[in-house]
Amino acid sequence: MTIARPSKQRSPKIIYVTPSHQFPLGMTMSLARRTALIDFARSCDAYIFEDDHNSEFRYTGPPLPCLQGLDNVGRVIYSGTMSKILYPSLRLAYILAPEQLVEPMIKIRAVMDQHSPAIDQATLARFLTEGFFLSHIKRMRKLYSDRREFFIEQFSHLLSKYFILEIPEAGLHFVAWVRQKEHMPMITRVCAETGIRPSPLSSCFMKAEPKPALTFGFAAWSRAQIREGLSKFASALNSKLN
Amino acid sequence: MTIARPSKQRSPKIIYVTPSHQFPLGMTMSLARRTALIDFARSCDAYIFEDDHNSEFRYTGPPLPCLQGLDNVGRVIYSGTMSKILYPSLRLAYILAPEQLVEPMIKIRAVMDQHSPAIDQATLARFLTEGFFLSHIKRMRKLYSDRREFFIEQFSHLLSKYFILEIPEAGLHFVAWVRQKEHMPMITRVCAETGIRPSPLSSCFMKAEPKPALTFGFAAWSRAQIREGLSKFASALNSKLN
Repeated sequence: MTIARPSKQRSPKIIYVTPSHQFPLGMTMSLARRTALIDFARSCDAYIFEDDHNSEFRYTGPPLPCLQGLDNVGRVIYSGTMSKILYPSLRLAYILAPEQLVEPMIKIRAVMDQHSPAIDQATLARFLTEGFFLSHIKRMRKLYSDRREFFIEQFSHLLSKYFILEIPEAGLHFVAWVRQKEHMPMITRVCAETGIRPSPLSSCFMKAEPKPALTFGFAAWSRAQIREGLSKFASALNSKLN
Repeated sequence: MTIARPSKQRSPKIIYVTPSHQFPLGMTMSLARRTALIDFARSCDAYIFEDDHNSEFRYTGPPLPCLQGLDNVGRVIYSGTMSKILYPSLRLAYILAPEQLVEPMIKIRAVMDQHSPAIDQATLARFLTEGFFLSHIKRMRKLYSDRREFFIEQFSHLLSKYFILEIPEAGLHFVAWVRQKEHMPMITRVCAETGIRPSPLSSCFMKAEPKPALTFGFAAWSRAQIREGLSKFASALNSKLN
């Protein structure tokens, strides 16, 4: 696979990608596309900014090497976050930068806010070096995988009449496409009335209008909560749309 | 006191000041200059960004109202920091913004890094609401005031032959002007040899060349450490410069 080289004046300087998991649609970038993208970046001397969020929460298929691991000429800036693995309000993430970018990045950070809080960083460092981080990922991957399967099962059982569930390989949410566009206003009303709060997919777009769909997070809910929420949602829809 | 209004095309949009304590020279802005600056900002519809660091560590003279307190038309953005009062690596500060700037500032912060870490903020909030913060400031002001007086006394006794000590009303450091310019190279050498590490004042300037001077922090050192450090420095200077 190759990507056509753009004309000189339209050559990118930096390419931002989330190869493990596109938000909101959930695609994972294939190995063929990964190597093609790196070749493309090399050919036009661009950097790739790899925002690898959700790489830890991949449930199907073989592990894929990150772009940074595939690159051997220092064109990839790799970035990972603790927001998905630990908790968002910790505000800690990290960057692996090519040698030549380390100094400039340190300078930029220094004028922004110097650095992240030291106590939080020291606590995280102990969490990592004492092995808790790895076991936490393993435990959470198992827990989320279980919730994910249960969500798929319950959703298919209760709501496949109204939605087509898109099943991504990674991440912590689903996109459910509305089968009949004309149902959308009533679905929105039912969400408001029942207190079920999926985000409309359209809220992720500035100009383009995607087909009607809802995004459902599953990671924060127990099996019982998933069953109860989806049942309530399905009953309300059944009573309004049948 | 008034400040001449600039011609329209050179009118400032924002004026950055540190009225409690200018770094590195240590001046405090007088009340007359404070009110004149506010009148000036009003007259040209500019905002004043008041970085009020070191307002808590003022040792002489009556307390001065901050610009934000003197302003009644919403032209002052007040900013305070925990870096000087608690510790720099906490990375927490705060802003009091005029009503009309609150929403835009929240949006800017949201795209920068969303917010500061929640656990640090919650811990600080308890420290404030349970009264520890105020008693900490009182205790530290007393401690720093004591170290400051001791530093002045020791420095004058040991080093007034070589330096004129500038005594600011606030802050945590002193500027010491070198009496004889030609001493500067030897002073720099003595600092390196004795491990005394005052910063040269010139390191705070990009282009201008100030008269030779050193800046000495005093807040982190006990009386014994101040006496020992300054004695060592003075002996080394005496043996080289006499």
